[in-house]
Parts: sequence; C-alpha cells; structure tokens
Amino acid sequence: MPPITPKLPDTDVRFKLGCSLAYQVKAPTTFIFNVEVAHLKSLAIKSEILTFAPDIERRVYATPDMKNRYIGLNVAPGPLSLEYNAEVELTVHRADPATVNETPVSELPLDILPFLLPSRFVSSDRLAAFAQAEFGHLPKGHRRVNDICTWINEHIAYQRGASDGETTAHETLLKRAGVCRDFAHLGTAFCRALGIPARFVSVYAYGLVPADFHAVFEAYLDGRWWLFDATRQAHLDGLVRIGVGRDAAEIAFCTPYGEMEPTNMQIRIDRADGGSEPTERTVDAISTEEPAPHAGAV
Amino acid sequence: MPPITPKLPDTDVRFKLGCSLAYQVKAPTTFIFNVEVAHLKSLAIKSEILTFAPDIERRVYATPDMKNRYIGLNVAPGPLSLEYNAEVELTVHRADPATVNETPVSELPLDILPFLLPSRFVSSDRLAAFAQAEFGHLPKGHRRVNDICTWINEHIAYQRGASDGETTAHETLLKRAGVCRDFAHLGTAFCRALGIPARFVSVYAYGLVPADFHAVFEAYLDGRWWLFDATRQAHLDGLVRIGVGRDAAEIAFCTPYGEMEPTNMQIRIDRADGGSEPTERTVDAISTEEPAPHAGAV
Amino acid sequence: MPPITPKLPDTDVRFKLGCSLAYQVKAPTTFIFNVEVAHLKSLAIKSEILTFAPDIERRVYATPDMKNRYIGLNVAPGPLSLEYNAEVELTVHRADPATVNETPVSELPLDILPFLLPSRFVSSDRLAAFAQAEFGHLPKGHRRVNDICTWINEHIAYQRGASDGETTAHETLLKRAGVCRDFAHLGTAFCRALGIPARFVSVYAYGLVPADFHAVFEAYLDGRWWLFDATRQAHLDGLVRIGVGRDAAEIAFCTPYGEMEPTNMQIRIDRADGGSEPTERTVDAISTEEPAPHAGAV
Amino acid sequence: MPPITPKLPDTDVRFKLGCSLAYQVKAPTTFIFNVEVAHLKSLAIKSEILTFAPDIERRVYATPDMKNRYIGLNVAPGPLSLEYNAEVELTVHRADPATVNETPVSELPLDILPFLLPSRFVSSDRLAAFAQAEFGHLPKGHRRVNDICTWINEHIAYQRGASDGETTAHETLLKRAGVCRDFAHLGTAFCRALGIPARFVSVYAYGLVPADFHAVFEAYLDGRWWLFDATRQAHLDGLVRIGVGRDAAEIAFCTPYGEMEPTNMQIRIDRADGGSEPTERTVDAISTEEPAPHAGAV
Repeated sequence: MPPITPKLPDTDVRFKLGCSLAYQVKAPTTFIFNVEVAHLKSLAIKSEILTFAPDIERRVYATPDMKNRYIGLNVAPGPLSLEYNAEVELTVHRADPATVNETPVSELPLDILPFLLPSRFVSSDRLAAFAQAEFGHLPKGHRRVNDICTWINEHIAYQRGASDGETTAHETLLKRAGVCRDFAHLGTAFCRALGIPARFVSVYAYGLVPADFHAVFEAYLDGRWWLFDATRQAHLDGLVRIGVGRDAAEIAFCTPYGEMEPTNMQIRIDRADGGSEPTERTVDAISTEEPAPHAGAV
Repeated sequence: MPPITPKLPDTDVRFKLGCSLAYQVKAPTTFIFNVEVAHLKSLAIKSEILTFAPDIERRVYATPDMKNRYIGLNVAPGPLSLEYNAEVELTVHRADPATVNETPVSELPLDILPFLLPSRFVSSDRLAAFAQAEFGHLPKGHRRVNDICTWINEHIAYQRGASDGETTAHETLLKRAGVCRDFAHLGTAFCRALGIPARFVSVYAYGLVPADFHAVFEAYLDGRWWLFDATRQAHLDGLVRIGVGRDAAEIAFCTPYGEMEPTNMQIRIDRADGGSEPTERTVDAISTEEPAPHAGAV
Repeated sequence: MPPITPKLPDTDVRFKLGCSLAYQVKAPTTFIFNVEVAHLKSLAIKSEILTFAPDIERRVYATPDMKNRYIGLNVAPGPLSLEYNAEVELTVHRADPATVNETPVSELPLDILPFLLPSRFVSSDRLAAFAQAEFGHLPKGHRRVNDICTWINEHIAYQRGASDGETTAHETLLKRAGVCRDFAHLGTAFCRALGIPARFVSVYAYGLVPADFHAVFEAYLDGRWWLFDATRQAHLDGLVRIGVGRDAAEIAFCTPYGEMEPTNMQIRIDRADGGSEPTERTVDAISTEEPAPHAGAV
Repeated sequence: MPPITPKLPDTDVRFKLGCSLAYQVKAPTTFIFNVEVAHLKSLAIKSEILTFAPDIERRVYATPDMKNRYIGLNVAPGPLSLEYNAEVELTVHRADPATVNETPVSELPLDILPFLLPSRFVSSDRLAAFAQAEFGHLPKGHRRVNDICTWINEHIAYQRGASDGETTAHETLLKRAGVCRDFAHLGTAFCRALGIPARFVSVYAYGLVPADFHAVFEAYLDGRWWLFDATRQAHLDGLVRIGVGRDAAEIAFCTPYGEMEPTNMQIRIDRADGGSEPTERTVDAISTEEPAPHAGAV
C-alpha cells in the first residue's frame, strides 16, 4: 500500500468554460472530437451543452480507464461548427510537494506500468541516458519532477512553428524549441526514462494567455497522478481536464479522417463563482484525480 | 452495423504449450511477465500451471480491454526460473478472404479508432505517403492486407541481428531486414496508414521452426480482428494468443526493471488432440477473437 | 586504364544564360554566391558579366578539384542585388548508353573514391540494403543508373514544399515526395550504395519550365562523369554546370551568414545560336567534363 | 589579414610510431588505407617504411588540399598484413590560448568555408539551436572551443560499444556516450554550428592508453588550425597527424570494398629522442599545420 501523503485542504473552484470550433468540409469526413471535460469525481459538471450545426447524428464513447469522452460524426461537405459550454466545479487536491514521494517500480500497481513505456511522441527509451545523466542524481519525489520542468523551461524556448505534428520528444530536445505539446511530451519522456509513470493531459487552462487548448502532463507519485506544466504558463490549480493519454496522438481535440479546413477556433475559461481574485501560480503539489483501487496491487 | 461475412465452419484444435525461462538476477529487479495465454472465449483453457523458483509472491493483472494477463514479481539477486504449461482448445473462426471487406472509418466503432494512431514502433504517420503509393490503389479488404504481407515478405529479409529493441517500422523499411517483431510492426504501420485499424499480437505459434515466441498482427475488417503473419513462417490457424497491444512495447513477454541476465529460454507448442497431421498453411481468413458489442457503435 | 567507350560525335550548342537575385539585408551578412558557370574545358565562356548593386568589394575562389567558382561579399544592411549574364558554348560529349560500363571499385582512380562515401544529405550508408535489393541485380552500366532514375521518377512525387533544407535522401524515400534537390540526392545515394561514384550538380537547365536553378547528378562510369536527371524535367544535353559537390550543402547558389531576406530571383537560359529547334530529350549518354589524368591511377 | 597571435616558442619532439594490421580476405577486396603520417611541413619524416604481405602492387594518392596519403590495393582471398614504421620530428606551434581569437565569418578565407558546412556524421545544422543555447553566450576564441570540449567531456561518457559506424553527432548527444570518433564529431558539430570552421583529424596519439588510432578535431582560429581533444585522453602536443577530413568517413584508416575480417591491429607511438620525460597535458594552444596563403583572401 502506498504511503499516505499528508495533504493540505482541498479547494473547490467553479469555472465556466467551452470552445467554438468551425470547419469547412471538402469531402466526406469522419470527425472525432475530444473537447468535453473528462468524467472525474473531482470534476462536477453543473451544466453542459454541446451543439453541432448542422445537427448531425453523433456517436459517443468514453474510455473506461481514462475517462476521456469522444464524439464521432460523419460529415458531408459544407460548413460544420461545434459549440461547447459547460459549468464545472473542480475539486483540487493539494499537498506539500516535500511530502510527495516517488513510488519504486516494485510497488507500482500493474495497471500503472504502461505509463513507463515509450509511445509515439514520448521517446523515453531514446532519452534514457540523457535523463539519467541530467536528473538521475536529483532528490527523488515531486521536487524531482518539478526540477525536470524547470530544466525544460530553461532549456527549451516556447516558439510557435518550431514543431509540427510529427515532432517527437528527443527532437524537441535537439531543437531547443517547441510549444506546450512538445514541453509536455519532453517532461513525460524524462519521467518515464527515470522510472516515473507519466502521461499526457489536455486541459482548459485558467490563466493561459491567449486562451487555447493547453497540454500539460501528470506524473504518478505516492499513489496518485500529479499535474505539472513545464511551460509555466497556466495555473496548476486551474487546469480542467479534457483527456489523458500516452501522448498527444490519443487525445487530439479534433481527429479528422477526410478532407477539411479549420475556419475558426475559440477557447474560453473563466471563474464562475463570483470570486474576483484568480487562482495563483501555486507552489502546492496539485492533483485532480482520485486515487483508484488498483487491480494488481499487492 | 457491419455487413455479415459469410463464413466457413469454425474448427477446433487442441494444443499443449508452454515455456521455460530462467534469469540470473544481479540486483533487485521487478519482472513483468506476459507469457500466459490470453483470456478469450475462443481459447478454452483446459489446464494451466505457472510456477516460479523461488516461489515468490506474485501480483496479477489482466487488461480489461485487451484480455492480456500480466504477472509482476519483485525478485532479489540470485537465479529465477519460470515454468509455464497449459493445454488449450482454440476455436478458429474461418472465412473466405474474398468476403472479408474493409470497414470505412465512418463506420468503425469508436473504441477501435485508437488502433489507427501511430505508436512508438509503428510510425504509421511517417509511412503515410509510402503506404498510399504502394497499396492505396489495391482492391480493398482482407486481400489488401494479405497483399501488404506479401510485399513485406518479398522486400524485407528475415535476418536475426538486423534490428534491436528501438527499431521502428520505417527503419525496418529502409534496412530491408528484421525479425518477426519488425515484420509485424511494418504490417501494422502500413495498415494504420491506410485507415485500417491494426494491432500487434504475440503468440505461441504452431509450426514455427525453431519454436519461439512469435509476433504477428491483426487488422480490423468487417467487424472483427483477423490474423496476419508477414513472415509466413507460422500457421495462421495455429496461433495461440498471449497478448495484443499497440506495438511490442506493451506486450513484451518479459519486461524487467532492474539488473538481470537471461540464462535460458525455451518455448513449445504441440497438438494435443492426437491428430497426426498438422494444421496447414491455410488460405482462409482466420480470426480467433469474437466480435464484441462496441461502445460508440451507431 | 578504363575501357574506351565508343562515342557519338560531340555536339556544340551556344546558350545565353544568367540570373537576377535580390535580397534585403537586415544585419551585416557575409554572402557566398555560386552562380557563375563552372570553369570547364567543355564550357567556353564567350562573354560574362557579374555585377552587384551596391558595388561591394568581392573575394573570389575556385575549388581546384571541382572547378566551382565562389564569390564572397560582406554586406551592410540594406538592399543587395546581383545580376549575372553569360554567353557560353557547351560541348556535349555523347555516347550510346549501351556502351558505357561501370568501373569496378578495384579500377577506380583513388581521387574518385571519396564520391562513394556518404555525405550530409546523401545517406548512402543507410540506404545500402535498399539499393542492393532494388537495383543490385540489374544489368550494370549507364543503363542501371538510368533505371535508378526511372525508379525514382516513378516512386517519388515532384512536390514543392515536401522537403526543406535538412531533408536527407532516406527521408525523401520515405516521404515519397521532394523537389529536384531531393531527386538528385536520392539518385546520388543509390549510386554510392551500389559502388558507383556519384556527385551532386547544380546547373542552368535548358528546357526547364519554369526556369529555375536545377539540381541533377553525375555518376562516374567508364572513366568519366555522366549526367542524370531523375526528375526528367530538363534536357540532359542542355545542362550548363554551375557547381559539383558531395551534395547540396557544398554548392548552394547562395549561402548567407547573417540576417537577410530574398526579395527576387529570376533564372534564364536560352539558345544563342539562332537555332530555332530546341535540343531534345535525348536518349544518349551525356557528359560535359573531360576525363582527367588521375593521381593514383595504376 | 588575420591578426597576429603572440605565440610561445615552438617545440620539437621526435617519435617512433607505426602500426601492424592484418586481415583475412574472403573475397576479392579493394582496400584503401590511410595510416601513413600526413605530408606536413611541421612533420619531418626521418625514416618510414610500409610493407604488405603478400607484396601486392599499390596505388598511392595524396589529397592536394588535405595532405592525406591513401594507398589502394586489390587483394585476392587469403591473409593480408600491413606493417608501418616511421620516425618523425614534430614541430609543435604553441600559443597562449587567451591570445587566440575567433575569426568572424566575414574574414574567413573562402577555402576554409566548407568546414562550416554539415557533413555525414557532423550534423551541425540539426545542432544549431542546441549549440547556440549552450555556447552562444560564452567568451569567444580558443577558450570557447576549449569550453565546448569540457562540456562534452562532462556530458558524454566514454564507452566502447555505445556507437557504431553510422552514429551521427546529434545521436551521440542524445545517447550521452561514445568513443573518440563520436567526441570529435560532436566537437566539430558544435563549432560549425557556432560559425567556427572545424574538421575531423586522425592521429597517432602519444600518451593514449591503450595505444590506438585516435580521433580529435581542429578548429580554425586566428588564421590557423588548432587541435582539440574532447576526450582529454591524449597529449595535445603529442598528436601526429594521419589525416584530416570533414568527418570520419573521409579518413578511415581502412576502407574495404569486398569481404574480409580484421585479424590483428596494433598501434604504437613512443618518443624517439631519448628524452625521459613525456610531453605533458599542456594547457597551451597547440597547432601543427602552418598557415597557408589562401585563395580568396582579401
């Protein structure tokens, strides 16, 4: 059984969020959207509406293990628009980072182990020596993953256009530039290379300027998943999850099979609880998913 | 609803199979083994025994979606050996390949779609143009995936030592050489690049000489998963599944975290039903997993 | 001594050619230009004028082995334009391709051997198995290199934007698309992989539409360098050499060190001998460099 | 004209050196050897003998620009051995590193510029951002190249078997391990990426334990080539040049075209001047090639 992490009181915050997307479809196209907030206990959906114009029949699917929600549509040529609005209450689990330890591989639940494996954009096997040399000697725990984020932030320039949809973690390391997707892939890769399970997370990010879909990552420490943002651009306690996956391939907000062009994209998130002050750039360790009873635990 | 495939009568065949593995552990090591046959309706386990020496406490885990069975052990320095023996009855679903069609992406169940995405060793995104140019114009269906296997068989040399644990599908294509793992990754990659869901499968392979863990792949056609072996070395109707995954990373028969050396490895599979003649290199389309009701189906 | 190739009569043709280039220099920049025609016996320069505006002091350099001509300028911020015009008479050496044989490595002059080595964009070592499998069994000689060009032409799409300045031969093979530079790199790579010395050539190309700097390659056969164009876009007997090198890195028409933006680029080549009919897409083997006495020849 | 570097007195040291190589030739093979010391003014050859058994006809070739000496042999199946012994006097040019400055690209001789270009194993273009981020801000001059060597020495592990004949500089950076060849490629790549001409050098290295062919690199500073060894394993003032080139491809000690196996390899170098004390791990800037009058100099 994992050690108990002394934790700070949970905090609740209410957000209004959503997105408006539009496409010009050129040839019959199957769209898979992943824009709805995830089905999590810590994320109470107070209201939610998703509309398409035209109003096409949809298929829905939620991954049982990941709680991601996908919507599929088969769209004929012409315009397509999507409008999503939700009000949610996010329960943020907080802890003193100094108390959040790494879990040795020997104690990891078996269903967590896949998050140690390399994936398409998270080339942790190719970064094994690099990660070991840079971070192998650092004090373990939440602070080590935070040190990794600091290192990435200092060594990789945030630069639009520096990467594309095929860019892999080790390439970002060489190019020394990327966007949030690349920062998250590299952080994920370093963690996995060090034996720390890690996964890619897409979010509505409170405090991100300009507003956009954001990518961060989670590391599995002391029995639960903790959030990290190597870009340092958003508030860790203002991240509302859309999806989690091995890497960006699994949780693109829009995966089109066909021919189309995006024509509009707007993302929004605001506090809904009347509070005037924003959440801050917290130094707490932050988690938004409840630890689950694991198959395979001793 | 997917079209109904006129099928041939199912056939049952009984196998005795197993493996003996041994390791010299140098430093405390967590082993994850995936050597037991999968939990499938089509695969009746008549008897099964798995022993370790020394007899260490084990953790077990089966992936809910994949039916793979994993065993985890934390092993102290010294020798470790594993002995697995099972008797199983495999029900082979057969169809005339000419009747097995591709399913358009617009009709794929949403839970099948992840098998269109690139993964660590299946760089289908980087092979998109190549796959389209070589196979895009071919008649669709089971025959197209079979044509892909023929192409791989003619263009890639089966050669031990030509690849290693980091070899990715597009590298195999350039090197023109590999082992069963590489053949399966390349077949999987070409399929995904063409919009055909595909996954990597590890098996006990009847008829493989010399006996070894074997890797093949499955493509999703007409509502179920069909087996393909681009090496043409084993009998398609003699493949007993151990695991399926996005690629080899997920279903290694042994994933060690620590320090150890393999000292022995023997794999075996024989017919157990007294029949003297072997199964043959069938030209039937072969499937060994029942179609499941899918979430997300229209 | 290499065998004598029965040859067809040489032909002479006179061209007017040149280019107009312009740049906006943002910060002090050192430009290296390689736009003047090469210093070859077979290329008689009847008149030639190169001007810069502003008229900056220039440094000139011709590679002794390659006959390439480079001009260096240190340019202050502001506009820079280059105007080059020349009238040349090209003597084209022709032979029946069936009579042009490959030279075994054992008979190659030692100063030709470097053109068997891989270079930055000509990853012939990584393409060794591929080249051997596709072309190793073909009848040797000029026809084999021509077969390579045909293969490239049939398998690689000519597509602007499919590559960039870092694209390497094996990547073009995977992407199945590129521009003249990529076609030439791939042809060069396949040749070197087969033991045929090959090099990258930049030219003014008569018959190319639209007019542009063009890249082709040369293979060393039967004691001299023969021209090949895998794009099949220009007339082999209308190629006026600018430079030759291991690959594109060595003979870029403009290599800038500093900060600048190109603002204009025009290339031109026309027949100057009053002849109305164009040269044709010849099937002759074409060479435009005299064989030289080689150091290291037996 | 480059600024004059105040220099320390030259020192002369006499070495006896050589190598014994043997091969079993399986099929007719053309060997190109590059084991003789280079033809340099600073390297007086007092005596020299190179023998082959069997005593096969040889072809010889020296690159005019590089002073490398190549020997070609066509060898029939059977054993082949090479014995090389020489006594040389090396004149070492020394300077205070603090006085050796970088030469701006605008002042570089045009024939030096090719050493700014990427080559097969020196992927300086792919390392541009990395080099700029790590070393762009450092004080320029000999000290900066020395800082690069220190960085490589601290970040890359010297490890046999970590690389192979296809390993490229950026891969060494990711693998964090390599041998002298890889250290030299990486040093060369960082320099070129920063606008410092650099080239790969093979040497007999006094003080290297165990004795072996060694690879170092040279950077062009203040009008001449200066030696650097990122492995810090040999004495900079005890390096006797065999060859220089863009990278290892050009100056392999043995390039075989055919089929053979190496059966023996011994390298030796000792002081021949009766002096008892060794040369030391000097902190002087060291150069062993005279500056040449350059074509293209202003």
